[in-house]
Amino acid sequence: MKSSRSIGPVHLGPGAEFDLIRKLIKSEEALPTGVTLGPGDDAAVIEGGWVISTDLSLEGVHFERAWLEDNEIGFRAVSCALSDLAAMAAVPVGVFTSIAANQEEVVESLQSGCRTAASEVGAVILGGDLSRTSGPIFIDVVVLGRTHRPALRSGALPGNNIWVTGRLGATSTAVGMWQLGGEPPPKAREAFAQPSPRCLEACYLVEEEIANALIDLSDGLVGDLGHIAAASGVQIVLEEVAVPIAPIALQVLGSEQAIEAAFYGGEDYELCFSARPGAVDPAYFKDRFGLDVTRIGYVQEGSGVWVNRDGSRLEPAERTSFNHYPTDLV
Amino acid sequence: MKSSRSIGPVHLGPGAEFDLIRKLIKSEEALPTGVTLGPGDDAAVIEGGWVISTDLSLEGVHFERAWLEDNEIGFRAVSCALSDLAAMAAVPVGVFTSIAANQEEVVESLQSGCRTAASEVGAVILGGDLSRTSGPIFIDVVVLGRTHRPALRSGALPGNNIWVTGRLGATSTAVGMWQLGGEPPPKAREAFAQPSPRCLEACYLVEEEIANALIDLSDGLVGDLGHIAAASGVQIVLEEVAVPIAPIALQVLGSEQAIEAAFYGGEDYELCFSARPGAVDPAYFKDRFGLDVTRIGYVQEGSGVWVNRDGSRLEPAERTSFNHYPTDLV
Repeated sequence: MKSSRSIGPVHLGPGAEFDLIRKLIKSEEALPTGVTLGPGDDAAVIEGGWVISTDLSLEGVHFERAWLEDNEIGFRAVSCALSDLAAMAAVPVGVFTSIAANQEEVVESLQSGCRTAASEVGAVILGGDLSRTSGPIFIDVVVLGRTHRPALRSGALPGNNIWVTGRLGATSTAVGMWQLGGEPPPKAREAFAQPSPRCLEACYLVEEEIANALIDLSDGLVGDLGHIAAASGVQIVLEEVAVPIAPIALQVLGSEQAIEAAFYGGEDYELCFSARPGAVDPAYFKDRFGLDVTRIGYVQEGSGVWVNRDGSRLEPAERTSFNHYPTDLV
Repeated sequence: MKSSRSIGPVHLGPGAEFDLIRKLIKSEEALPTGVTLGPGDDAAVIEGGWVISTDLSLEGVHFERAWLEDNEIGFRAVSCALSDLAAMAAVPVGVFTSIAANQEEVVESLQSGCRTAASEVGAVILGGDLSRTSGPIFIDVVVLGRTHRPALRSGALPGNNIWVTGRLGATSTAVGMWQLGGEPPPKAREAFAQPSPRCLEACYLVEEEIANALIDLSDGLVGDLGHIAAASGVQIVLEEVAVPIAPIALQVLGSEQAIEAAFYGGEDYELCFSARPGAVDPAYFKDRFGLDVTRIGYVQEGSGVWVNRDGSRLEPAERTSFNHYPTDLV
């Protein structure tokens, strides 16, 4: 933990938004004493095993008030932020909420949802800031967790398999329907309104030395696998037919669009990880956590993310984001 | 550090904004293991002496783009947040910036100012989040510092004196002039654009056991003294004639309005602290830090903040905020 250690290059996958992050992070800056892990992974880690991450939710970008009740907006904002702790295999401890809204009653509802999301994972609100605004609602959530063994994006090795928890695409389905002026069916709405940060599952996967690289799915499967590939210096091959799609996505979007949603839609907040062959027992995992875990691809020498679409042909997975948040920078 | 310890009641001074905070913080919630200090002071403290606070800056509430360059907006946002570390006598380590703005170039300028402010106190950017927005610019800054002896608001004792660093009212002067459509003189503008978090001074005051209660002046002198009085369970008497007013405030506002600005204007980001008689050596302090430190009142049994306006008569200091940010909740 010498202060002469520098932040170092940031290994993110391709995409304009990640180019901007690369530009903003100064890799030559010295990492302060006591800081174990600086920017570039899902969270920072400091001495004592404390993990800190921040995640913002902005009306008109990440949600619309017509889509959710105010307390759901707060719940979702905190749950999404907590997913970054899951990505580090950290146990949630505390949450700080900075909220700007136009009325006290709105602040109270938002904060009430924030508190519920925190308490569901055993965390409490430790602070925050408030402001009135006539502009869009803004919630920035800081999450504080703790781990003795942070999970990184950089541990994937050639020969590993790639796994994902749950089923993908339901959140994108809901957002797509809202954006077309419709109202999503309950299962899709719930996926958006109540993401489940997979903290327990992540801690298990890391403590049992099953996952050697771990990320949470916020940028979309292909985008997030791009981060693992870049951080680990490997190539990842995604088997299209293996990716578990949420039934509601298949039902609403049809299979072709549902696969697009699963690959590029983002905000599923499931875990994606690499593991050596034989390390994962899906039946035990399902029994213990009530959640599917599915092998969706493998790791080999090379770089980038490739897709095996028909069982033989590999294509580069070029798109990094589904187009439902056109104004989102990251 | 037992998990059965609860957050406990939050002792803040009077004011609608603090009523809301009191409502939002659930005093009966258990404080998690590893959390030394929960909500209610200037920052939270966790095991290892880490101090965490968050502070938001919102266009149209805390600043206007017509007032400052974008990099100054970032600089100011981070400096104001760092002042909460000064209030805890913590050494700054890292900063997380969540930024929403309408263009990449704006994000880069804001972030550049953020980085400059961090590096001026030896901290680095450790993470953050970005979003594009067509609404107002939003910057939420999380600051991470470290201390082996956090300064609290709760240590003031009857018989102590109350001290303040620097001179007050220049920031309010600038804001008032901008709000009237004018352009403030350079000294007032600079006070707003480049607040100085008093981290070194605070560490000295606490390490030398000079200050026994400490706060930074963000809510205005009377408002912040209200927090010390409430947290310490004492009454604070402010001597009007002793309060050091910034010359530019006197020059622009005249003496009566300048005193109002110093009492209620807020955002001076100076330190205010209590100390036993004889503990403070203003000449040494000035020599060491190039900064005035001035005795402005005293502590006695009772509650609230009172003002001695003419040398004999005590009045309750009822107002808690100067009216230049009418839309600010906190």
